[in-house]
Amino acid sequence: MNFIIRTGEKKDMPSIFNLINELAVFEKEPDAVHITVDDLIENGCKENPEFYNFVAEVEGEIVGMALFYNRFSTWDGPSLHLEDLMVTEKYRGKGVGKALYDKVLDFALKSGKKRVEWVVLDWNTPAIDFYKSTGATMLENWNLCQMREKEIKNYLSKK
Amino acid sequence: MNFIIRTGEKKDMPSIFNLINELAVFEKEPDAVHITVDDLIENGCKENPEFYNFVAEVEGEIVGMALFYNRFSTWDGPSLHLEDLMVTEKYRGKGVGKALYDKVLDFALKSGKKRVEWVVLDWNTPAIDFYKSTGATMLENWNLCQMREKEIKNYLSKK
Repeated sequence: MNFIIRTGEKKDMPSIFNLINELAVFEKEPDAVHITVDDLIENGCKENPEFYNFVAEVEGEIVGMALFYNRFSTWDGPSLHLEDLMVTEKYRGKGVGKALYDKVLDFALKSGKKRVEWVVLDWNTPAIDFYKSTGATMLENWNLCQMREKEIKNYLSKK
Repeated sequence: MNFIIRTGEKKDMPSIFNLINELAVFEKEPDAVHITVDDLIENGCKENPEFYNFVAEVEGEIVGMALFYNRFSTWDGPSLHLEDLMVTEKYRGKGVGKALYDKVLDFALKSGKKRVEWVVLDWNTPAIDFYKSTGATMLENWNLCQMREKEIKNYLSKK
């Protein structure tokens, strides 16, 4: 199967949105996506965008994507966060995911980033095994903490 | 004790650097800090900086800081990542950490962010209890994955 990896553009955002939703279903959080295609366009297709992406294309169809953005580690310096790496179900097992992963790592290296970070669900052993096989480190003693807008408003209103 | 919370400037970066190192020691990773004061100035004191910060000041001395930056969640949209929240040991237990935490959350709300995320070590129960008491959610089934520059180079060189 032939595919190309290229930078996604405004016209690709609906396909990227579909992949975000397919990933949320895979992650057993089908109702987690609160953004819209317009949010992707607004934040990803402007000067100094909030995120970057690569898409995988087969005969004009977007079959996978990697979405990432800058972070700053106080240990390692400028770094990238790989927010989503997703290949649509029927195109898995053909090297598309690895090609996207490699492209992000190559991009990180070429843009002088000192680290790439991402998260993985602890039951997703095929992904964990793949990441480990590439030399990635799993940090199992850190917990993610989140507060969403509603909880922030609620907390600050009690002060 | 009187303290003020304000935005940190270039002149505060050496104090922020010291707090980053003190935090690394607290986190049992005393050799983890590979950045320098110049890296903080270069990345934090430019147009479109890689990070933002607030500092806590007591009689001209920086006793605490919060360092954070933009992220983009494909579930929630524009968000903030709280990279470090640190109060130097002798000023703990006086409300400085909570004031910095509140300031970051207030900043997130006012700048239209939909979520704030950070990480905490799973043995740091006082911090976890505090975060939970404010309404934060702990996500315990996600693992952090990282690849640093050296490992990325090594992996890509084998292709």
